[in-house]
Amino acid sequence: MGIIDDSVRENEAYASSFTSGDLTSPPSKNLAVVACMDARMNVENILGIKLGEAHIIRNAGGSVTEDALRSLIVSTKLLGTKEFMIINHTDCGMMKFKDEDLKSQLLEETGTGAVSPSFFYPFKDLEANVREQIQKVKTHPWIPDSIVVRGFVYDVKTGKLSEVK
Amino acid sequence: MGIIDDSVRENEAYASSFTSGDLTSPPSKNLAVVACMDARMNVENILGIKLGEAHIIRNAGGSVTEDALRSLIVSTKLLGTKEFMIINHTDCGMMKFKDEDLKSQLLEETGTGAVSPSFFYPFKDLEANVREQIQKVKTHPWIPDSIVVRGFVYDVKTGKLSEVK
Repeated sequence: MGIIDDSVRENEAYASSFTSGDLTSPPSKNLAVVACMDARMNVENILGIKLGEAHIIRNAGGSVTEDALRSLIVSTKLLGTKEFMIINHTDCGMMKFKDEDLKSQLLEETGTGAVSPSFFYPFKDLEANVREQIQKVKTHPWIPDSIVVRGFVYDVKTGKLSEVK
Repeated sequence: MGIIDDSVRENEAYASSFTSGDLTSPPSKNLAVVACMDARMNVENILGIKLGEAHIIRNAGGSVTEDALRSLIVSTKLLGTKEFMIINHTDCGMMKFKDEDLKSQLLEETGTGAVSPSFFYPFKDLEANVREQIQKVKTHPWIPDSIVVRGFVYDVKTGKLSEVK
């Protein structure tokens, strides 16, 4: 049995006791979170977020890419969120390679080089990276100035968040 | 007290009973999931995924954008995932607007038009959209053919997943 088959079977148990079918689309806490896809982060649990409360956007690194901005704009303009939280974390895989090395590897393995994504956005300095992501949100012309934007580092060893100022 | 302050306080309770500090970066179930950011989806609970088991990628719609592909390539090439699951859902906010309307609204409100993101990727047909996302993964030259890619619709009223074939 495959990995996905296992998840589908797990979903049967989840659905059999599901009782939250009345929730509506706009997040009741008016919160949107951008975080890394890392398997060691359960964003809802880390932040005590219950079903229906917040948009959760996740990608490699917890980066404010063009796509994360797309999601944040939809989140605030169409679904009313008012505070954005950006979370990167310790021991992130995105701190362990160089863009040019991964691209060379892909070119060598597949024979195809000129393909998007053009960049993988690895980074070296965790706190500096969080600050850069905050700036990318705050300076975007389509994100209202009234939105609160704060950035954090999550420690995968302790479960603790620390704010980056 | 702000919304984020509330989440930071919730994290103190989470960290105080945290016991999973020994997990490593590669997802132990070799699974990556692409799902919508919708507040009514707790992806880990829906799929019975425990801490450390899977990469969770989320954005507006659960779309296989260039950024989701970036994350999936990092996931499989650097961290060894072998199966990808794509999950869209019923009552999605991305089925309720037109790209040109949102862009006109943003231009009118901010006076700024020519900014990325250039597209917000709304869609009309849920199952057709899932099929399109599967295709975008399967045809990408940097995603190995050996990767299992399957797509699902999650019903926010019942908590149930249905596979799209």
